[in-house]
Order: sequence, then C-alpha cells, then structure tokens
Amino acid sequence: MAVEQDSHLIESEIASEAVFEGALLKVRRDRVRLPNGQESVREYIRHPGAVVVLAFLDNGALLFERQFRYPLKRVFLELPAGKIDPGEDILITARRELREETGYLADDWRYLGVMHPCIGYSDERIEIFAARGLRWTGESALDHNEFLEVVELSPDAAKAAVWQGEITDAKTISALFWVERSFPE
Amino acid sequence: MAVEQDSHLIESEIASEAVFEGALLKVRRDRVRLPNGQESVREYIRHPGAVVVLAFLDNGALLFERQFRYPLKRVFLELPAGKIDPGEDILITARRELREETGYLADDWRYLGVMHPCIGYSDERIEIFAARGLRWTGESALDHNEFLEVVELSPDAAKAAVWQGEITDAKTISALFWVERSFPE
Repeated sequence: MAVEQDSHLIESEIASEAVFEGALLKVRRDRVRLPNGQESVREYIRHPGAVVVLAFLDNGALLFERQFRYPLKRVFLELPAGKIDPGEDILITARRELREETGYLADDWRYLGVMHPCIGYSDERIEIFAARGLRWTGESALDHNEFLEVVELSPDAAKAAVWQGEITDAKTISALFWVERSFPE
Repeated sequence: MAVEQDSHLIESEIASEAVFEGALLKVRRDRVRLPNGQESVREYIRHPGAVVVLAFLDNGALLFERQFRYPLKRVFLELPAGKIDPGEDILITARRELREETGYLADDWRYLGVMHPCIGYSDERIEIFAARGLRWTGESALDHNEFLEVVELSPDAAKAAVWQGEITDAKTISALFWVERSFPE
C-alpha cells in the first residue's frame, strides 16, 4: 500500500536508543512522531527472527515437541522451531532446527509464509516451512541447555488439541492454519 | 500433567530480578535450575495480558483494524485487541476495547479460549472472545496516541488474506482458527 495513503496511520522515528542489552533480549526505546504531529515513545524488542516447521511423517502425523517455557512456567505442546543465526539462510535454519530438536532430516521442503508473533512490542518474524520425506538420523543434537520431548500428532488431533486448549502457543496455531496447504498436490 | 512426570523438562527459579522497567516493557532476568541440575539464565517480558475479539456484524463480516505497528514499521491488518487493565475482568476488557477501537457494542459474547503469543520470552496471554449482535455507537473513543482504521472482511476473505500473506499477525491468525466455532448453533 502506498505510504501516502496511510499517512494518517504512520509513525516515524525521531531518535532510537538501546535501553537494555541482555544475553537474549535487546530492548530499544524510540522517540516517534505520531500521525497528528505529536511525539510519543515506543519500546520494543529486537529479535533475529525464527522458523517453525510442519514436519509430516510418512504416516501423515506431525512432529510436535513438549517443552518447558520458563516465562509461563509450564510445558507447552508446540511445533519444532528456533531462531535464525546471523546471516543464515532461513531454509538452512529450518533444516538445522528440525534435525537438532527432533533428529529428523527431510527430503522435501516447502516455504509457506511468514507470521509476526508479537507486533505490539517485538520485531520478531517467524518463517513457516513444511517438510516431508522424513528420515530419522538416530539421534537429536540438542543444545546443552535444551530439554524437550518429541511427540507425534495427526493434523486432526492437533486441531482438536487447539479447540480443547491443549495447544495455546500462537506460532503453532498459526502454522496449523496452513496444514492443508502444505503439500496440496 | 503431573509435575513429577515432567521433571526431565522443568526448570525452577533460583533468583529473579527486574533488569529493565520501561514505560511499556518490564524485563526480568532469572537464574534457573535446569533439569540436569546445571544453572542457566532466562530473560523475559512481564506482560499484563490482553484480549482479542472476533466481532461478527449482522452481515456475517468480521471487524478488522488497519494499524501501524512501530516495531515492524508497517501497517498490519488485525482483529480488535487490547491490554487488560490491572484487576479488570477480561470480558470487561473485551467490551471496552471493542467499543474504544471500533465504536461498536455487542449483545452476545462468547469466551473461546486463550493463546500465548510469545512463549520464548514473554508471559503474555491473549484471551479470545467472539461477539455478535453488534450496535454502532456513532463514535470510537481512541486513546489520544492511537490511530487506526476499521475495515470489514468476511471470514472467507480473512482466511484468503492469511494464505496470501496479507494477514501475518499471529494473534489474528490464531483467533481465526476459532471462527467456525464462535457461534456454532
């Protein structure tokens, strides 16, 4: 859409500074010009981006993970996912994360699209992939600080798990939106 | 699930401190005990929680908003949503945000479920509501720093917009997962 058309919505940067630089989280605070000409402040996370994978086993089931997520202090049922390394091609990230977390390689990859998990306070994007032709390598290769359990769920069971409140992770629900479009042929 | 069952996944808090307190963002850094007994660090956002609303007009269309999101510096097409005020009942939040942002009241409300947009680094939850029996009040009541445009999209057009990459906001995609289940009778 033309910028001019949206001038009644657009905020522009006046100044930007890093206000917190943690090991994981980088926070910026910008002074911005609002559409009405006034000034305001926006705080947000800078994130390197991530991928999520709909990985279909030959039996049609999807690979899921059970993983403890510290901010919410409970185990979540979610699709394989992980952060993009600096300069890394996103398909390489997808292959790497699937292998590291689940121990599977895949012969056939499709790029499906992108989602934005947290538009109010993070610039994170999550690139959505589908994979099939899975081959088990015999072992996963988790980071020494990563602990997770791999489980299989059919697409129908996964949808039911959303409606039953057993899957609440928004990247997983959003990726499941694509499940019938993953390999349509 | 029993805590004991998941002891191979669970991380426990050793110490917790506030490391950044912005106007919007509150960041904590915790020292944690990993399942293997080692120590690590977790940084995460504390968030008050939010609501999102599938608001059905009498013609079957859903209310959407076009809003500039500063972290990504572009306009997003998204469902009405907003943060829960301290101590506020979530249905009150949903009614308040729908009225403030779109100018509509609704006669019939349903609670659908909860999602978690950012489980890696935020404790945010988003409570999902559906509303129908909409009545236009004649005006919206936006915060002085809020600028948005209200648009209508049929559920089918909204799904197509996801697959075409025109809707990438994960809370919106996740809420659309519930569209047929909003008022099933």
